[in-house]
Amino acid sequence: MKISPYPLNLTLRHTFRIARNAHDVQNNVVIVLTDTDGVSGHGEAAPTRFFGEDIPSVIKAFRLAGEFLKDFDPFQTDAIALRLKGLFPKDAAARAAVDMAIHDIVGKKLKIPLFKLLGLSRPEKCVTSFTIGIGTLEKMCEKVNEVKDFPILKIKVGTKDDMELLKELRKITRAVFRIDANTGWTADEAIKKINAMEDLGVEFIEQPFPVGNMEALKKVKRHTKLPIILDEDVKDSKDIPALAGVADGINLKLMKCGGIREALRMIHTARAHGLKVMIGCNIESSVSITAAAHLTSLVDYIDLDGNLLVTNDPYLGVTVDNGRLLMPEGEGLGIVPNAARQQPEDAGTFPVLEKR
Amino acid sequence: MKISPYPLNLTLRHTFRIARNAHDVQNNVVIVLTDTDGVSGHGEAAPTRFFGEDIPSVIKAFRLAGEFLKDFDPFQTDAIALRLKGLFPKDAAARAAVDMAIHDIVGKKLKIPLFKLLGLSRPEKCVTSFTIGIGTLEKMCEKVNEVKDFPILKIKVGTKDDMELLKELRKITRAVFRIDANTGWTADEAIKKINAMEDLGVEFIEQPFPVGNMEALKKVKRHTKLPIILDEDVKDSKDIPALAGVADGINLKLMKCGGIREALRMIHTARAHGLKVMIGCNIESSVSITAAAHLTSLVDYIDLDGNLLVTNDPYLGVTVDNGRLLMPEGEGLGIVPNAARQQPEDAGTFPVLEKR
Repeated sequence: MKISPYPLNLTLRHTFRIARNAHDVQNNVVIVLTDTDGVSGHGEAAPTRFFGEDIPSVIKAFRLAGEFLKDFDPFQTDAIALRLKGLFPKDAAARAAVDMAIHDIVGKKLKIPLFKLLGLSRPEKCVTSFTIGIGTLEKMCEKVNEVKDFPILKIKVGTKDDMELLKELRKITRAVFRIDANTGWTADEAIKKINAMEDLGVEFIEQPFPVGNMEALKKVKRHTKLPIILDEDVKDSKDIPALAGVADGINLKLMKCGGIREALRMIHTARAHGLKVMIGCNIESSVSITAAAHLTSLVDYIDLDGNLLVTNDPYLGVTVDNGRLLMPEGEGLGIVPNAARQQPEDAGTFPVLEKR
Repeated sequence: MKISPYPLNLTLRHTFRIARNAHDVQNNVVIVLTDTDGVSGHGEAAPTRFFGEDIPSVIKAFRLAGEFLKDFDPFQTDAIALRLKGLFPKDAAARAAVDMAIHDIVGKKLKIPLFKLLGLSRPEKCVTSFTIGIGTLEKMCEKVNEVKDFPILKIKVGTKDDMELLKELRKITRAVFRIDANTGWTADEAIKKINAMEDLGVEFIEQPFPVGNMEALKKVKRHTKLPIILDEDVKDSKDIPALAGVADGINLKLMKCGGIREALRMIHTARAHGLKVMIGCNIESSVSITAAAHLTSLVDYIDLDGNLLVTNDPYLGVTVDNGRLLMPEGEGLGIVPNAARQQPEDAGTFPVLEKR
């Protein structure tokens, strides 16, 4: 198999602000993986600075993965995922790209969509939330009004005005709220805010505290009722057992765990612990959002809106109607080029790679 | 899909004795599942009295499963397994039969072997142990001498003569010993015996205590060094978290957990806890032994000798050469009729079913 990576620079519809940062563009990498029969699959890496990834680290991982995969059979998805994890334990986004591209190839070779390859049902009636980043009250209200057809909103919080903003937003929408603090709270602050949120139509609270703050999680569990879903605290399946007693669920992301194979391990491990499962995303194109959408029949909460937040997605895959995911019909991931936009493959590869 | 169950009465080469019982025949049920395209798959249920199963309970479960599966697409293996578990939580052997038959069908429809469907590598260099049941010293020595080509022996223990027998067996073979007490020991007895076994080439100890005896497990962990693998204590993935701290590994069996889908959940959950994984079996034909063999690239210890202990296996599937598993080449499970033996399908169905 051969890997070709291309820059995928996504332009955000609005500046995206969470508790710890803000940005207007998201620089991802799309790969085309081609096997010895000439069948090719797409993958995408959305590197996360929070986990120490950037474009150069992703490109380096692809180069080494290319060496490793040269003589591999794409059907050995499980062995490949484990070996790549051994080789690049910290490069989850790059591993996710390779893993989804391999699944794309296998699905195409068998002429079945990814969910069917995985023994899953076609996702039906699966509803994604739409994310509202942190902003002024005026800006947040404007965003909420733009997405009136979404029945579930994920609201980013983490400022001193959280409660006031939330109360104002509640006045203009009947959507279910999911609250994401992105590690931004202290224990006492969380207890006060979560209890006050109970009457505001909030379904759950995501990642209230910085990573590893078990004491705060235990305290908040004793003093609040809303479910706590952990995101930054849970990278992969090995993180789950220690957190099972102090949280109600996990938010898995392909970019965080390293792909579909590890996502399945996480879902199975979480279920064995009686935990709820959410599937989330970064700012991504339809390549990796569609890959994640194939798993949605297995989860409780869906937050796959990364492609809806950008204006120049070069691919078409899963689409959304009133929040409901509509799966594409094709084989493998089922993504196709969006004819109206320039394809990353036409814009050239990374110069840094050409030199090597 | 339509289920047809047939009696599969297996004759044992030797009386099979473990800590709590003994028998000369094993009455299993083989099913042929046929989907609406006319593609059929085989499955096998080996009901376990220890878990409250017998032939009538298995047949009843098949009849109800047949109703449930009538309009199902076999590709929805995961959803089917979960739904059947909800319908027949206690009928793991019957669920295992349906689950493997469905995987057989899907593999045949896609024209790939089961391990490939699951994203796994072809099992290579996977070595099974051979089980030596409890008997007189003379009988056990005779059995050990019959299987000199097996590099690993699983020795059943649970009598007052355990240590004497083991020391004598050590004199006549260089095989690795795995010791299975089948819930037969007390904590103090286990500590004494396990410590004495350290110099006898013992790899691990299986299920020393009755189900649920956490205190004995904790005590033995403090006072012995050999790994402890749990069998009767672990039926499925939900049993694993509570046992992770007091054992070193789990022995999964398709008949115990309900099939391939749940086996994968167990493997993923065990790995997330850093546990070793063994795959074992009951007295079974090549149908279900071959189904289990497709998973062997994922485990640390293999004990798939159930078909080697019987004289009238009507099927051919995985074979064994010097303990090493040799996978069949076919699609799905890859099992075929053994032309030298009468097939269960030719001997007629269960009269009890015909009456309904």
